[in-house]
Amino acid sequence: MISSLSFSQNPYDLWLQYDNIEEQHILETYKNQVSNIYLSLNSATGTVIKEEIQKAFKGLLGIEPKFDSKTPNIIISTLDKLDPSLQKKLPEISKMNDEAYVIQYISDSKDAQIIISAITEKGLLYGVFNFIKQMQLRNDLSKLSISDSPKIQKRLLNHWDNLDRSVERGYAGFSIWDWYLLPELIKQEYIDYARANASIGINGTVLTNVNSNALVLSPRYIQKLKALADVFRPYGIQVYLTARFSAPIETGDLETADPLNAEVKQWWKNKADEIYAAIPDFGGFLVKANSEGQPGPNNYGRSHVDGANMLAEAVAPHNGIIMWRAFVYSEEKPEDRAKQAYSEFKPFDGKFKDNVLVQVKNGAIDFQPREPFHPLFGAMPNTPLMMEFQITQEYLGGMSHLVFLPQLFEEVLEEDTYTQGKGSTVAKIIDGQLSNKKLTGMAGVANIGTAKNWTGHPFGQANWYGFGRLAWDPETSAKTIAQDWLKMTFTNDSDFVDPMTRLLLESREAVVNYMTPLGLHHIMAANHHQGPGPWVKDMPRPDWTSVYYHKAAADGIGFDRTSSGSNALEQYAPEIQKKYSDPATTPDKYLLWFHHLPWDYKMKSGKTLWYEIAAHYQKGVEQVEGMQKTWQKMQKYVNPQVFEKTNMLLNIQLKEAKQWRNACLLYFQQFSKMDFPDFIPEMTKDLNYYKSLKLPYAPGISPSWN
Amino acid sequence: MISSLSFSQNPYDLWLQYDNIEEQHILETYKNQVSNIYLSLNSATGTVIKEEIQKAFKGLLGIEPKFDSKTPNIIISTLDKLDPSLQKKLPEISKMNDEAYVIQYISDSKDAQIIISAITEKGLLYGVFNFIKQMQLRNDLSKLSISDSPKIQKRLLNHWDNLDRSVERGYAGFSIWDWYLLPELIKQEYIDYARANASIGINGTVLTNVNSNALVLSPRYIQKLKALADVFRPYGIQVYLTARFSAPIETGDLETADPLNAEVKQWWKNKADEIYAAIPDFGGFLVKANSEGQPGPNNYGRSHVDGANMLAEAVAPHNGIIMWRAFVYSEEKPEDRAKQAYSEFKPFDGKFKDNVLVQVKNGAIDFQPREPFHPLFGAMPNTPLMMEFQITQEYLGGMSHLVFLPQLFEEVLEEDTYTQGKGSTVAKIIDGQLSNKKLTGMAGVANIGTAKNWTGHPFGQANWYGFGRLAWDPETSAKTIAQDWLKMTFTNDSDFVDPMTRLLLESREAVVNYMTPLGLHHIMAANHHQGPGPWVKDMPRPDWTSVYYHKAAADGIGFDRTSSGSNALEQYAPEIQKKYSDPATTPDKYLLWFHHLPWDYKMKSGKTLWYEIAAHYQKGVEQVEGMQKTWQKMQKYVNPQVFEKTNMLLNIQLKEAKQWRNACLLYFQQFSKMDFPDFIPEMTKDLNYYKSLKLPYAPGISPSWN
Repeated sequence: MISSLSFSQNPYDLWLQYDNIEEQHILETYKNQVSNIYLSLNSATGTVIKEEIQKAFKGLLGIEPKFDSKTPNIIISTLDKLDPSLQKKLPEISKMNDEAYVIQYISDSKDAQIIISAITEKGLLYGVFNFIKQMQLRNDLSKLSISDSPKIQKRLLNHWDNLDRSVERGYAGFSIWDWYLLPELIKQEYIDYARANASIGINGTVLTNVNSNALVLSPRYIQKLKALADVFRPYGIQVYLTARFSAPIETGDLETADPLNAEVKQWWKNKADEIYAAIPDFGGFLVKANSEGQPGPNNYGRSHVDGANMLAEAVAPHNGIIMWRAFVYSEEKPEDRAKQAYSEFKPFDGKFKDNVLVQVKNGAIDFQPREPFHPLFGAMPNTPLMMEFQITQEYLGGMSHLVFLPQLFEEVLEEDTYTQGKGSTVAKIIDGQLSNKKLTGMAGVANIGTAKNWTGHPFGQANWYGFGRLAWDPETSAKTIAQDWLKMTFTNDSDFVDPMTRLLLESREAVVNYMTPLGLHHIMAANHHQGPGPWVKDMPRPDWTSVYYHKAAADGIGFDRTSSGSNALEQYAPEIQKKYSDPATTPDKYLLWFHHLPWDYKMKSGKTLWYEIAAHYQKGVEQVEGMQKTWQKMQKYVNPQVFEKTNMLLNIQLKEAKQWRNACLLYFQQFSKMDFPDFIPEMTKDLNYYKSLKLPYAPGISPSWN
Repeated sequence: MISSLSFSQNPYDLWLQYDNIEEQHILETYKNQVSNIYLSLNSATGTVIKEEIQKAFKGLLGIEPKFDSKTPNIIISTLDKLDPSLQKKLPEISKMNDEAYVIQYISDSKDAQIIISAITEKGLLYGVFNFIKQMQLRNDLSKLSISDSPKIQKRLLNHWDNLDRSVERGYAGFSIWDWYLLPELIKQEYIDYARANASIGINGTVLTNVNSNALVLSPRYIQKLKALADVFRPYGIQVYLTARFSAPIETGDLETADPLNAEVKQWWKNKADEIYAAIPDFGGFLVKANSEGQPGPNNYGRSHVDGANMLAEAVAPHNGIIMWRAFVYSEEKPEDRAKQAYSEFKPFDGKFKDNVLVQVKNGAIDFQPREPFHPLFGAMPNTPLMMEFQITQEYLGGMSHLVFLPQLFEEVLEEDTYTQGKGSTVAKIIDGQLSNKKLTGMAGVANIGTAKNWTGHPFGQANWYGFGRLAWDPETSAKTIAQDWLKMTFTNDSDFVDPMTRLLLESREAVVNYMTPLGLHHIMAANHHQGPGPWVKDMPRPDWTSVYYHKAAADGIGFDRTSSGSNALEQYAPEIQKKYSDPATTPDKYLLWFHHLPWDYKMKSGKTLWYEIAAHYQKGVEQVEGMQKTWQKMQKYVNPQVFEKTNMLLNIQLKEAKQWRNACLLYFQQFSKMDFPDFIPEMTKDLNYYKSLKLPYAPGISPSWN
């Protein structure tokens, strides 16, 4: 009953918790090391840096930092304004990119100094956030010698936010963009959003849903957008919009949106000019075209290349980019949906303009708990591919399941595509290493909303944080991310950090186990996607059903994607084809993604497939129980409200994990006709019970779907 | 850029700000007076009381209160457990109602004591909140001798919240009821909502929209409702629902909802039994029937009495009540909409069952900036009438206008109906004084949402607070409410409180002036109701247009409701009829409500009507400018974020006040053909500009209206 605001560890502050350092010796050491600051900047970004330092020092150290230049022990300066004698003492920075920074402790003078420097002010901001993080992590400042730069250029959140403030697949309340009161009302949340993103290196945000609305391109909304851009600019964050391909028609200006039509081209050029006049650093457009009912160039017999390049020309004079989504699958095509994006886009390799990124989801279906990497990665060497991850948990339990997604992201990024020989990981394709790409990017579909802690689930914050870290460096380990986030958000106590790191890293396998083990996929309930729905079959399209994907029948279960089936496997490199074409050499985790196997198929474990399916579902449930046990021991480290809320959410997760297990096993048993192994608890409800569960007004879907 | 959470005056904590008392002598005195507490309760309410005291003492006094019974200087006990010798020293309480309490400082013993006592634990809770308030107000505790009880029994918030979390006419984000995650997830907001309401004596809440959804009556939702009821119970708050009259049909159980049908009666009895089995103190139902498209008894040729009494019978065995709204106006009737509720309901006087309240809006149209009191008040002496005020600012600027509504509420409550002679005020009808009603009530349509400060506009909190105070005692003055709220929320410094009290008390007249002066009404934009729309005419019903109400034409402006017109005036007492039938004796504020007058009509001021209309619009704008000037001086007293946010909102208010002035004057000038007085600034935009303004996705309306 005590207000949520009277605790330290305030959930609103995310990982930027600056609670007073309790370890007295560290506190005293830090206070001696960082009392006096020289800050060379007088710009808006300089103000941001100064205020962040004030906040951090006041919180962590309990001091008001002095910004006088006489005897500074911290020097924060862009490289060009730094004394040449100091420059020499820094790690090499000149060859690094514009967003790079260095942090160097220099002890050879009588008075030791910490230098934070960068080529640009934005780099300096990143450096300062990292420096503060060093104190949050209780690291030894006298050992600081950091030279860092982002490996990916465009590090973007994608907000699937509608203008009515509903959020498609949003589970954290509603859109934080209060368009109605913009541009006049600048909410504090906008500032704190920018601050949080800058702290993890995110440098762009697409504010609107990919299922887009042309209204946002109108003059009135451009003024609103400008207000947000002005807030975000000092934090190094650019704004982007989704472009509705049919906007020229919907605004009433034209009768066609044909990308080869001269008037259409001019319309977009004019629109781009209009936006850039208000927002000189506008980032560009994200486009979902000819996908799931969205308009696009195909409506006029034109290709994705025609559409993307037309828009690319419009924004090119302003250094804007186009992110063109590859998430397409045709209503007419009978081809395995997993194959369609590759089939459609691979022939376009090398044909897009320089300022076009093709944005590809991590897997070929749709953000499932586990999918093999998308076959387009590595298949378009002459086209910059942008990774699209989903931070919001559309298929992973909405807001009520604790799932640490950096583990999922890491798994994808580490996968070897073999497209340029062994070691051609997805990460190296995305960050441009393998083909020296000029343009690189990673997008994360945001899990942010009006919830007082931003993400609804307290642990949703870790996924936002982790996405930022991986967009900065896609080879960062999930374990490092988990540890840093836990320390920054809660405490550095290893009795908390160590078991909770294990919990986080296991949480993603848990959700795979209790939802879609062994390569199963897309067997969730229809529309809202919450809870099991292996029985889903009557939908407007076959590839929106569950039966299309699991193909459970008397003869077995799984989608044959080898040469005897859809041969989606042929879209991968020969090394992978070879390995995955035989169930015996296919990793268990992808088994039923690529193979249709009999229920009594003998697994590597020696058990039957049916037994292993049951064992995985059971293990998932037990893993959630294990998470509960671990969490119970963490009470003393955590804000009591967060502790209780997480308890309640874990209870929901366990309840739903059991629903998944029971519903799926009962459903599949109709075909396997085999008994449950002994470790499966007795079912007290029948299949019809699970089928009858309805979730009206489930969050994250359009009101009209209810 | 500093997080909103690092300040005192945390907006989330509303008027329950317990910042440390800075006046050192008061602090020391209080600490001596309240260090040791005796608390007799071990119930859930006792825990609530204890925790509130801990929070308040820790905040205000910086101490952990001691709860030991040895040498208490505060005794908190129900009367029955209080030492008889102490009982004798208290003000008379036994004749007071169950929610009464006393606070008495007793100084005749060596160790002075403060006694807080009540008949019930709920009364005790109210007493404790008042005691804490005394410290917030810096009152002398040694002078405490308070004997207080609510004058109205049912003090309810009405939430127009939909199950999809949209809020009809909600301007503070979305519904705080996260139905989807109930009953498992109990959000901290639910607890703090109950706490805030209990602190001002609100004892019930209708959780769902009057435009209702039968789904909330389903077993699954009853479990969710139960979870909220369990949270609210220790705070003395009952839950209520809106009942959709056609629910027996919509659930699929029956083919009719005819209130005289035996199966229908049984259905509602069963439904009531089902709800009460889960929630023994469920409050009852609020019903909007046969109004604006809602189903009701008229669909079956039955009356409102038939409908209300049928439901009343269902809940009567459980001590439940029915609140039946009188907000009806027929699609077919050509009668002046202002007359219809009276025409329909007056004949029903005395025919409702004992547990029915007829809920009447304060005015006969619909929550306008100003309306004369509803003629039903005083017209149904044998029926308990419940007041319905609107706290959310549907017609008063949404979330962006600072309007202190207790001034509006006070004006209505003070109006003399003359129905039982002079002094028959609306307040005395509502609180039952005039007819010794057994059942009394006041409802306020809530302005609460997911906004981090609950109400969006920082000053919206004052309207929630003020409603509670007036529901407790409808004769409380708006000035007292303003002062208390300012002190509790911000500071006791008179340099802040005095000018801000004046600002609050003037703010309501300002909005009347710049929106609907001199008795004008219902001339706002259609559907979303934000901004001017005197030109609105083509709507599904004439009485949804503006032209229906202002009747501006070459011959003048205003709605003739005297005997030469609709004669709505006949619904009032003869004293009022006499006074208002002549424009010369009609108060200016109601002039055009009752009279259609020529543009050059000579006003009491000696000026023409046209001049006075212009003067009032101009004055409204200038009043907003005055509010801005006052606010500028308040910076040092206010949380910087609240200061800046209020600045931004006042800028919006001023912009929109000017839009109202310009749009209405330009529109009416078409008919008056008269020049603007000199004090009206030159118009830079024409009428078509104001007509062209569109507000897509304005908050508070159904998504389907866009």
